[in-house]
Amino acid sequence: MLVEIVSTGDELITGSVVDTNASYIASKFYEIGLMVNRCTIVGDNKEKIQNVLEQVSDRADIVIVTGGLGPTQDDLTSEIAALISNDELKLDKQALSDIEQFFKRKKIKMSETNNKQAYLPSRAVMLRNSCGTAPGFFMNHGRAVLYFLPGVPGEMKEMFETKVLPDLFNKFEISKRLNTKISLFGVPESKAANDLKDFQTRFPDIILGFRAAFPIIEVKLSSSLLADDQDAGDVFLKAKNWIISRFDNKNIVSDKGLSMEQEVARLLIKQQKTVAVAESCTGGLISHMLTDVPGSSAYFLFSAVTYANEAKINILNVNNDTILKYGAVHEHTAEEMAKGVMEKAGSDFGISTSGIAGPTGGTDEKPVGTICIGYAEKGFSTARTYCLNFNDRTRNKQIFAAACLNFLRKKLKEFEN
Amino acid sequence: MLVEIVSTGDELITGSVVDTNASYIASKFYEIGLMVNRCTIVGDNKEKIQNVLEQVSDRADIVIVTGGLGPTQDDLTSEIAALISNDELKLDKQALSDIEQFFKRKKIKMSETNNKQAYLPSRAVMLRNSCGTAPGFFMNHGRAVLYFLPGVPGEMKEMFETKVLPDLFNKFEISKRLNTKISLFGVPESKAANDLKDFQTRFPDIILGFRAAFPIIEVKLSSSLLADDQDAGDVFLKAKNWIISRFDNKNIVSDKGLSMEQEVARLLIKQQKTVAVAESCTGGLISHMLTDVPGSSAYFLFSAVTYANEAKINILNVNNDTILKYGAVHEHTAEEMAKGVMEKAGSDFGISTSGIAGPTGGTDEKPVGTICIGYAEKGFSTARTYCLNFNDRTRNKQIFAAACLNFLRKKLKEFEN
Repeated sequence: MLVEIVSTGDELITGSVVDTNASYIASKFYEIGLMVNRCTIVGDNKEKIQNVLEQVSDRADIVIVTGGLGPTQDDLTSEIAALISNDELKLDKQALSDIEQFFKRKKIKMSETNNKQAYLPSRAVMLRNSCGTAPGFFMNHGRAVLYFLPGVPGEMKEMFETKVLPDLFNKFEISKRLNTKISLFGVPESKAANDLKDFQTRFPDIILGFRAAFPIIEVKLSSSLLADDQDAGDVFLKAKNWIISRFDNKNIVSDKGLSMEQEVARLLIKQQKTVAVAESCTGGLISHMLTDVPGSSAYFLFSAVTYANEAKINILNVNNDTILKYGAVHEHTAEEMAKGVMEKAGSDFGISTSGIAGPTGGTDEKPVGTICIGYAEKGFSTARTYCLNFNDRTRNKQIFAAACLNFLRKKLKEFEN
Repeated sequence: MLVEIVSTGDELITGSVVDTNASYIASKFYEIGLMVNRCTIVGDNKEKIQNVLEQVSDRADIVIVTGGLGPTQDDLTSEIAALISNDELKLDKQALSDIEQFFKRKKIKMSETNNKQAYLPSRAVMLRNSCGTAPGFFMNHGRAVLYFLPGVPGEMKEMFETKVLPDLFNKFEISKRLNTKISLFGVPESKAANDLKDFQTRFPDIILGFRAAFPIIEVKLSSSLLADDQDAGDVFLKAKNWIISRFDNKNIVSDKGLSMEQEVARLLIKQQKTVAVAESCTGGLISHMLTDVPGSSAYFLFSAVTYANEAKINILNVNNDTILKYGAVHEHTAEEMAKGVMEKAGSDFGISTSGIAGPTGGTDEKPVGTICIGYAEKGFSTARTYCLNFNDRTRNKQIFAAACLNFLRKKLKEFEN
């Protein structure tokens, strides 16, 4: 079964926007055991789009086309779909009513040009859009069934998942597969791949994939067996456990594919504990990550981004002598920061960072990439130093923040056991 | 002149990695006045890659191919390049020496498999890789000149800019164009496009583009006239000024395309001023943005992420009565937060946010998207309320943070005049 993806739009072909739609659709096909044959990007040009659609219809069984269903003159997809299939555009009353309802709900006056979006090839089947104005549709042409979806990622995803996938399950011999993700931290992708190099011979029915969500590596498993097959579940569990056994516990962030901050949030909520953060080199990123998880007010009390030494001393009660004697980037300072912020906030835990994100500020003794992580709980505090340099300020901040949260995560896991 | 881009790799065709290389290369061609014809993604499969390369060589004048130059068995590109051009792979001694030097510099033992990377089609011209192990190369085939570049984005970019572009300028009638970006905030992309709809008739020689870097809109100008043409400069300046005149000053973040945080940093450094931040709903994002700009310790002193009311009272000296009477999300509270953090840090300015990022926590009176922004300078403080809801916690945090920084930016601009 050959699958192709076609993304249309001048914003893509001029590089203004990265084509995340094709990547999303490709990953969805991969999850159901189909590797996409080709993805093609083409601009908003009638002849070029027509050309591509003719070629893919001859080559593939399933084609997903995104973009070009909007209300403007640049939006040519429906017209071209009609053209290649010797069809004509016809008003789809349900589509028009959906568009009118959309504007009514948003309390915006509908523009004349939006009428255009309700004209679809007469023999096509309309796909309703529940979160935007552009209806999708599908039709047969050449060897293929072609699905036309809006280019707006949110609308495309909703339509792909609720309309296209069920239709594909219906039409073709494909079905839902078992999928899971395991999140790793502190293991380079190349090492993870090497550590798991025997996987495919051990588990030939399960597809192994990797995704780097820096600094986290996601190990993705998808079974080529059907989800409702009893054996599939057993094999899948065995495979997952084998992978987990190949790594040190401290590197396994989540066996459910959660991000670092989601896992820390989950553990804090489960243990009904609160945290406060003192950040220097991470500059607010840890707080930003923790508060990106909805419901963060349950466990996140306070964070102090203390760049200046005065702030470390005045706000966090770090000892002036500690900074004078050891410097800001030191385990003693980081430990006092963690303790200080915990006491100030009245939280159960305090965590802290002090380090050098670069590009400047490094010395021979403390080069760019040096990071001191502090940790405090009631009656105990500690600190560690690491050197993690990725030659990029933002990436260094990201790995520092993840390393600090990982420290807390490991402590929380200890309390669980 | 027809340009095509081919990206190879299983990680792309399975959706594990988004193809940012094609987007980058497409934008570089657009800047020199060439719109790419097609971008194609294909997996690490010999027959499929060969097929695509044959097709693009017949269709295009310039082809950029990325990926598949690594040391593993999956890396097939050089072999296929030799195959389609009836050539054979031959050891390139310079390439081998470069690879050996690379490992020597990194103090890592070179693996046997890396030798493979130095074998290139015998008639191809090698392109040296100054930041990785995979050499690139170019060769003629069919109608096209094909450039083969590594898939690692950093290595690809370096090679494209320092080797491919100069070679293209040499071979073809293309040359550097004038380019600029203007950053807008608070103007939806559709409105920006509409406000500038007369642009193309007024300035037919200049290409207008938009790029959404939420919540900033970048308006991109590139001249189709050559950079060394005297008139080009005049027309370009006129065009830029016309665009600036179409928007309110408060919406123009930077006429040099800087991001919000870069522009705020630039103004603070120029005026030798410092800032402290009190964040509630933005949860550390403002601090993270400000400290992402290298050299931020010059103007950023301290930030307090005060989620809990106790933290607002204890750390920022917000009046208990203010919170009791008006609540945490109120202009009075935001103003006291800004003043409090400025005084605590001894900075020249204080800025603050208090609002509701969602998805929960909204009320009829204060719905999700409500954001109070506080501002303090010596002897003066104020606050404003906005309602900016994008139905997404992360996007709401982003627009809240940008709105707060924009408030400070406007004040800094006032001091300049």
